[in-house]
Amino acid sequence: MGGDSEPRRSAKWHARRDEIVETSAHVFAQRGYHATGLSDLCEATGLGKGALYHYIGSKEELLAAIHDRVMDEVMAGAERVAATGGDASAQLSMLGDELLDVIHRYPDHVWVFLHEFPALTGERAEQFRVRRRAYEARVEAALEEGIASGEFRDVDARLTALAWLGMHNYTYLWLKPGGRLTARDVAKPFADLFIRGITND
Amino acid sequence: MGGDSEPRRSAKWHARRDEIVETSAHVFAQRGYHATGLSDLCEATGLGKGALYHYIGSKEELLAAIHDRVMDEVMAGAERVAATGGDASAQLSMLGDELLDVIHRYPDHVWVFLHEFPALTGERAEQFRVRRRAYEARVEAALEEGIASGEFRDVDARLTALAWLGMHNYTYLWLKPGGRLTARDVAKPFADLFIRGITND
Repeated sequence: MGGDSEPRRSAKWHARRDEIVETSAHVFAQRGYHATGLSDLCEATGLGKGALYHYIGSKEELLAAIHDRVMDEVMAGAERVAATGGDASAQLSMLGDELLDVIHRYPDHVWVFLHEFPALTGERAEQFRVRRRAYEARVEAALEEGIASGEFRDVDARLTALAWLGMHNYTYLWLKPGGRLTARDVAKPFADLFIRGITND
Repeated sequence: MGGDSEPRRSAKWHARRDEIVETSAHVFAQRGYHATGLSDLCEATGLGKGALYHYIGSKEELLAAIHDRVMDEVMAGAERVAATGGDASAQLSMLGDELLDVIHRYPDHVWVFLHEFPALTGERAEQFRVRRRAYEARVEAALEEGIASGEFRDVDARLTALAWLGMHNYTYLWLKPGGRLTARDVAKPFADLFIRGITND
């Protein structure tokens, strides 16, 4: 977070910026990133262009901030899982709890993340790929641990991680705050299905 | 296909329209639907605006045609599965083969389908929801059949169908023509994992 070249900002500045990122995530999720103009963002945030630029350097910086917010939350969850420990099934199950919790709490951010990531360019696109890959590696590591210990069958860890990610990420289409199902309502049967699917007989 | 009010078109007209839909799917997948202008479509298809309108009434009609193409293919696969029969595991396994085959053969169409469906409006949005729901019902029916016969555990068929759809649909991000893996390379272990995950002990 922030190299030496970045100015030191107040807590108030950061809080206001977070609000702007939050509001923009909602606008991008509704209208699409490319279809959203600076004037739409000004209207939604109630800020003039000058004031908006005081918090955010460009529309793409805003998009990157939305992606970072999701990745920060998702990696914090993976860290909690690593700190808790337990066998591979427990780890995978907790990773699912944490991921669905983020999807459930950040519907707009996750929508933008999954739909608009190709709009990130250059360094920002690369940084996003690295962070996304680092998270995927946590899922793969839990699978590899289970395979090594004999807890899981000798599945292809990468392909199985992609299956797991698809099953969980795709909930963004229907797992909504205030909806019929909580994140836990979904995480439990998903973990059950997935772990049975790869457990050694 | 086509009410009485639609003019009768030649086979050549339909073939040319299919090409335009194909080319446009590629452009939309690359640039995004909203960011693509009519002039971009003219450039990609090599047609003038008048010629383009001879085949397609609007940009949204083009988007709907891309969605219809995916749904046509996916439902044709589901029909083949229904015609083949077999127990619930076999049906689910074949549904996976068919779905991944479509995702593998139509990467641009599927990308547009999964990213841009919210851009469909009114009657087109409604028709798309109905068709998508009809396909999902095929997956749910296979699950319900397996639950009823005791082949599968007493899982929530809707939630399990959503898990299955997520796992399979999400492959659009990495299952590419000419890539390391074929559709079958993925469908087989996915079916294995999923069916073990819901089979009665």
